[in-house]
Amino acid sequence: MKFLNSQTIVIAGAGNVGWHLAIALSKAGWNIKNIYSKNIRNAKKLASRVNSIATIDFHEIYSADIIIFCLPDDVLLQKLKTIYIPAGKILLHTSGSLGIDVFNSISVNYGSLYPLQTFKKGNDDLDFSTIPVFVEGSNKKTISILQKLAKSISDSVQQANSQQRLFLHIAAVFACNFSNQMYCLAEEICKKHNIDFQLLVPLILQTAMNTKKILPSLNQTGPAKRKDMAVIGKHLEILSAYPELKDMYSSITNSIFVRNNEDGHA
Amino acid sequence: MKFLNSQTIVIAGAGNVGWHLAIALSKAGWNIKNIYSKNIRNAKKLASRVNSIATIDFHEIYSADIIIFCLPDDVLLQKLKTIYIPAGKILLHTSGSLGIDVFNSISVNYGSLYPLQTFKKGNDDLDFSTIPVFVEGSNKKTISILQKLAKSISDSVQQANSQQRLFLHIAAVFACNFSNQMYCLAEEICKKHNIDFQLLVPLILQTAMNTKKILPSLNQTGPAKRKDMAVIGKHLEILSAYPELKDMYSSITNSIFVRNNEDGHA
Repeated sequence: MKFLNSQTIVIAGAGNVGWHLAIALSKAGWNIKNIYSKNIRNAKKLASRVNSIATIDFHEIYSADIIIFCLPDDVLLQKLKTIYIPAGKILLHTSGSLGIDVFNSISVNYGSLYPLQTFKKGNDDLDFSTIPVFVEGSNKKTISILQKLAKSISDSVQQANSQQRLFLHIAAVFACNFSNQMYCLAEEICKKHNIDFQLLVPLILQTAMNTKKILPSLNQTGPAKRKDMAVIGKHLEILSAYPELKDMYSSITNSIFVRNNEDGHA
Repeated sequence: MKFLNSQTIVIAGAGNVGWHLAIALSKAGWNIKNIYSKNIRNAKKLASRVNSIATIDFHEIYSADIIIFCLPDDVLLQKLKTIYIPAGKILLHTSGSLGIDVFNSISVNYGSLYPLQTFKKGNDDLDFSTIPVFVEGSNKKTISILQKLAKSISDSVQQANSQQRLFLHIAAVFACNFSNQMYCLAEEICKKHNIDFQLLVPLILQTAMNTKKILPSLNQTGPAKRKDMAVIGKHLEILSAYPELKDMYSSITNSIFVRNNEDGHA
């Protein structure tokens, strides 16, 4: 089998990020020697998808030239305390919130490859080429291999230092996890009142698609934007039955109010 | 000019909803006799788009068979206090939060036509056919015309009573206005740290598109879902500089925690 590059890769971690990254790199032609996971079933499942070998032996990560850690931050930090890495290896992580300096006592070649997307294993039709990938490397050698890796899977490769990546991650938590939580609360309201959640999907899609053309701050609609106190009062009254939803409704409505005043659109 | 139906329509209100509804009905072949707005420029702009006549005289609404009020709830309630409607007219509103009984002392033919979508005037490529439209009518005659109106513009016409519509509206506020507010907060973080907001758009689109296939409660990702306290702690520390963002981060993270515990996925 002919590979894109002679350098080999180990993916340490077979969670959501490891899953999609390994598949994307394998599709791009990289040789993924091992998939490490503490859970052998997860490792085997992913290894079989990317023509690789599953292992639960953490020392197997030394088998490749490039080690990509797709582990939760705290797990990675624990592992790094006891790790000994042979010279020449390139160590990368995929964390939004860890600096690359977590590696600096272990290797000279290290960095981060951070794909800005929400990953779930089941989602097989994810198009990696559209996902912005942010890279940061400790030296020229690492940056060069990071560029090769990132450009082989994404059309949108950006440089970002550890501080920028941290803010990107926080922004992503708001834009993705917290907007999804708003969908969850809508789902709960639907469930309580026998409404099919799917009826909200065109609205959700339109709201998201609008961000392609116009900044969300210029695109707010609804009772809070209109300062429609009659509607807001009615909603809060109805939500009295669900105190947590009521609190959330109040605080986000307030957050919209404050910005209405600032931009003079009220 | 040949119209779809001999019955004529007045649209009272040339805001975001009136704008898109008038255009959709006109495209479907309905005869829109007048566009009323207290702002003649708004009325004229919309009237010119739908081959209609602009008016700032509220009494002109009596010129048509069907009067569709696309006004803010409080404005509509004010207008209804002084209105006298000739017999036989059909009165409809497009409000999520008003019952249809607001019309019951004025007419026998009344109802609601509620399109569940976020409307902005500038957004010209909105596809009305995919928007769920909820109808409720006071009698058979009104329900029949409501079905004709709704089916002429949407492939997804549903019956919903005033109570169901109110919950739909609250769910829509969460799914649309509040998720958009999460995008706004992400936009602010990007702005403060020189990050191009457009880099978040693939993430936003994916999060929204996931709702087509899987309920959002089964699709949460990120540090709160993983109970990754190291990352959450770091984010909260960074957000100390922005107390409002920090409070919002805390309360939505908590909202995710609570549900993690409930569904045993923690």
